[in-house]
Amino acid sequence: MADTNDLVLERLLDAPRELVWEALTTPEHLKKWWAPRPYQTPEVEVDFRPGGVFRLRMTGPDGFDTGTGGAGCVLEVVAQEKLVWTSALGPGFRPVASIEDCGGFPFTAIMSLEDAGGGKTRYKAVAMHRNEADRETHAKMGFHEGWGTCADQLGEVAASLKENV
Amino acid sequence: MADTNDLVLERLLDAPRELVWEALTTPEHLKKWWAPRPYQTPEVEVDFRPGGVFRLRMTGPDGFDTGTGGAGCVLEVVAQEKLVWTSALGPGFRPVASIEDCGGFPFTAIMSLEDAGGGKTRYKAVAMHRNEADRETHAKMGFHEGWGTCADQLGEVAASLKENV
Repeated sequence: MADTNDLVLERLLDAPRELVWEALTTPEHLKKWWAPRPYQTPEVEVDFRPGGVFRLRMTGPDGFDTGTGGAGCVLEVVAQEKLVWTSALGPGFRPVASIEDCGGFPFTAIMSLEDAGGGKTRYKAVAMHRNEADRETHAKMGFHEGWGTCADQLGEVAASLKENV
Repeated sequence: MADTNDLVLERLLDAPRELVWEALTTPEHLKKWWAPRPYQTPEVEVDFRPGGVFRLRMTGPDGFDTGTGGAGCVLEVVAQEKLVWTSALGPGFRPVASIEDCGGFPFTAIMSLEDAGGGKTRYKAVAMHRNEADRETHAKMGFHEGWGTCADQLGEVAASLKENV
């Protein structure tokens, strides 16, 4: 369901669904694509089950650093189909201590995969916000460019796994 | 895991686990026990799967009325074992529009059942808050008395189902 509080990004990735899922859910691979280059993801702490921790530390050449706090929470995991997580809750489903802990605005992300034929995968990411103001804030922070770059990187990492199959 | 931000309530209920679960997850039964008498639960809208709506309207003889808004979200459902829901997210896992929408403070509840032998069930409810201040607010609102009364009512409703087995 599209909603005016959502931001939506879609990409056709040149890798089959099982490899995109692998790239999406393996810490070592997440480090390679989670942050839009030249930003980096030096730390990944994820537990892909409902209530599991979802924390990815991002750093940038300009001194940008999301730090070691601000853990989110995994909400739903359907292998090779859907991954849902939120910054509104922390590990174990506990509400986060403050809005600052979720980067100024809480949101829930639904990342889904669909077979697109010919060994390709349709990747869709939906960021659901509390209201239009938060959606606008996220959009102005560069959601489409940032998440788009990351999606391209996700596709590259997934494609690179083909040789190892 | 106990946490200083949690409120915990335990009750030994005189009914087997499958009947307590039935009383816990059936809208018609929820209406009978969800609100501490003389408060009532005239409307129940629940969908017991991850991301499902969790909205129970409570009214009281003093004009108290939680209204028709403020829907929470079901997070985890393990039949006859565990039900987890939160007021920090709405249906579909979307973060709630404002703190007011979750009664002044968001929290996540874990309601769990355990066989206690002799046809009895140990019921445990944990309310997890953002911080100690929210926990205190919830405690002063009468958490232990209110949730305790509801737990007793839950036990009564579950016990009343024995005859129908």
